[in-house]
Amino acid sequence: MNLKDFIRDIPDFPQPGILFRDITPLLRNAAAFNYAVDQLAERYQGQPLDAIVAVESRGFLFGAPLACRMRTPLITVRKPGKLPGATISVEYDLEYGSNVMEMHASDVAAGDKVLLLDDLLATGGTLAAAAKLVEQAGGQVASIALVIELEALAGRQALGDYDIFSLIQY
Amino acid sequence: MNLKDFIRDIPDFPQPGILFRDITPLLRNAAAFNYAVDQLAERYQGQPLDAIVAVESRGFLFGAPLACRMRTPLITVRKPGKLPGATISVEYDLEYGSNVMEMHASDVAAGDKVLLLDDLLATGGTLAAAAKLVEQAGGQVASIALVIELEALAGRQALGDYDIFSLIQY
Repeated sequence: MNLKDFIRDIPDFPQPGILFRDITPLLRNAAAFNYAVDQLAERYQGQPLDAIVAVESRGFLFGAPLACRMRTPLITVRKPGKLPGATISVEYDLEYGSNVMEMHASDVAAGDKVLLLDDLLATGGTLAAAAKLVEQAGGQVASIALVIELEALAGRQALGDYDIFSLIQY
Repeated sequence: MNLKDFIRDIPDFPQPGILFRDITPLLRNAAAFNYAVDQLAERYQGQPLDAIVAVESRGFLFGAPLACRMRTPLITVRKPGKLPGATISVEYDLEYGSNVMEMHASDVAAGDKVLLLDDLLATGGTLAAAAKLVEQAGGQVASIALVIELEALAGRQALGDYDIFSLIQY
């Protein structure tokens, strides 16, 4: 199965000049969605993972079924003010301005091996911030998994030495 | 398995006087998370469903694994400006002010039988709005599924004649 068949290209979204890779057709095709989750599960099966950390909110769409399938704890990294317990946070730069993401402080224990998961790797800023959160808690980023990798934006290079796996590359 | 064992009570969140029911311990327990998804799947297995419509963003955490398990198309209802295609939208009231949610206009076809899914039923405002979106597109809300139902807030009454199923009641 070619997962690219289930990604829709939408020009000029969210801004003029940007070609948006839309995953919603993939979500709407049960065979393709399951295939994507299967491919992720196969890549990590047998690897010792203490948790999957999924980035809000599109990361939830793949992190949740993957965590269920792999029977691995799911941890959410969220926008500020959403997690009710004691949190740790990290600020990261966007093209204009900055953003903050939070994680429950007690979710990752020292030495935990964690798989980071999001839908898309662009410049890598969001995932670098999520990795920082995991490490702030004493965990180790065992790998970073993406559905889509936009190679021209060199997120892989920006993320340095982390192990990175993506299902679809453009 | 008693799913309530995996819900954490957090007083005064997000505001003083509110007791927040935190699902993150459930997500972090693979057996409990799978059990919750299994219970939802069992309830709807055999029922003709054209799609599962999950509400951003905690609805994604249960809607995505349920859609995978039931091999049913997943549709996302999102905050404004997130969906890249042509959308339909609905405005709904919050305690203070109002909010808008969007769905891709072509995601639900006339006559489609849809399962609406979110993590929590409180006053029912969000789910009533999501149901309106589905119906605006010509679909039928076959049922509404929740992980948690706060019975004191009478969301079930506010939602009227819809079929409603929740895993945990307070």
